Amino acid sequence: MQNYQLLQGERIDQLFSSNIKIIQNREVFSYSIDSVLLSRFPNIPAKTSLVVDLCSGNGAVGLFAATRTKAKIIQVELQERLADMNRRSITLNALEDQVSVINDDLANLTDHIERSQVDLILCNPPYFKVDETSNLNDSQHYLLARHEIATNLDNICQVAQQVLKSNGRLAMVHRPDRFLDILETLKKYKLAPKKVQFVYPKASKEANMLLIEALKDGSTTGLKILPPLIVHEENGAYTSEIREIYYGK
Amino acid sequence: MQNYQLLQGERIDQLFSSNIKIIQNREVFSYSIDSVLLSRFPNIPAKTSLVVDLCSGNGAVGLFAATRTKAKIIQVELQERLADMNRRSITLNALEDQVSVINDDLANLTDHIERSQVDLILCNPPYFKVDETSNLNDSQHYLLARHEIATNLDNICQVAQQVLKSNGRLAMVHRPDRFLDILETLKKYKLAPKKVQFVYPKASKEANMLLIEALKDGSTTGLKILPPLIVHEENGAYTSEIREIYYGK
Repeated sequence: MQNYQLLQGERIDQLFSSNIKIIQNREVFSYSIDSVLLSRFPNIPAKTSLVVDLCSGNGAVGLFAATRTKAKIIQVELQERLADMNRRSITLNALEDQVSVINDDLANLTDHIERSQVDLILCNPPYFKVDETSNLNDSQHYLLARHEIATNLDNICQVAQQVLKSNGRLAMVHRPDRFLDILETLKKYKLAPKKVQFVYPKASKEANMLLIEALKDGSTTGLKILPPLIVHEENGAYTSEIREIYYGK
Repeated sequence: MQNYQLLQGERIDQLFSSNIKIIQNREVFSYSIDSVLLSRFPNIPAKTSLVVDLCSGNGAVGLFAATRTKAKIIQVELQERLADMNRRSITLNALEDQVSVINDDLANLTDHIERSQVDLILCNPPYFKVDETSNLNDSQHYLLARHEIATNLDNICQVAQQVLKSNGRLAMVHRPDRFLDILETLKKYKLAPKKVQFVYPKASKEANMLLIEALKDGSTTGLKILPPLIVHEENGAYTSEIREIYYGK
């Protein structure tokens, strides 16, 4: 019981379509739809033995993914406060044998695991470049989670190239206005985009999210644009696809 | 009447949502939905004075676009047989004062028009790389229209950079599996992608077409992914959006 004791301001959220419970704290960090969609995006073949969840926050992506695979999952989170929430959520779900947390900068990942051993990386990174329009009034925790202060696309793709097996995959959620940066950085580190799915808040709106999967040392031909994922009906209700993801069938 | 006399095998097609008639010949060249969508894709502000339609085929893209602007439209088609159909379609629509055809390789465009004078280029190019899997049994006309034999992305983007005004735009329709090539070639010629729209045959299917607009000498930030364009309902009927495009309101 003590292992997953809640601190002040924390609550437990459950994704109704799975049995996974996540310790949340609105003032520190809460997962959102991005994490849910990312955790379901890549295929995870049965032979997968090692998955890494970079920028794991309070652990939602890797913990949701744990329901889809028997592979070991290593989560990497720089912020001690979030890594602690992540660890307690692992305990809360009795997943200590499958899932663990490294509380360090992802740039140091090769200090913790061997190179070229990872089948799949999941990453929900900070979305925003740091510039004069950044809202730097956010709490420190949200600031680091949202803005490229402690890490950035280049760091992430570099570490992916280091730790992925040949033909291992990086799956990432990000924003369409960074799409060109993402493609250039993937290319720089010989990660070949193979699948992209755009997420639209409504069928009549511009995409506000994208999911992308890239293959280490893959050929740059054969990119697929997956069916559109639409979150809300025009009247604001969730689409049936999203209802199923959140609440199950 | 003689100016738009039909040759053997030709018929006149009309897009019901416009008054434009196009001379078609299934054995030589017929326009398809790609041309219709491209002609409607870019904004054409009232101040636009010169539009160029590259790889104009039998003229569908430029002629449909003529209903949206008072600008002069120059169509460029290498194949004499298609350029002839294009010219007769212009006459058929009594648009000789607005629309004209250059029957030449687009790589020679600066022999015909001055540099840096074009507001907008429309281009429905050959989609396929030439490789061992190409179906080279097509008729000569379709072969050149579909495969990068007589022109390619590099030629197109190069000539766009030559003839567009600063901040002029290139709007192109193409296929998602060439998306990475397109982005790289645009970048090579300092054409900055600003708007992309993916076209899905059904909401449940991968995209099979994309529309892209790039700005000459623009900044590479601020890419927008426009709302998905879905062609058919799951039962195979046209969606209301496509019905409106084809048949009007």
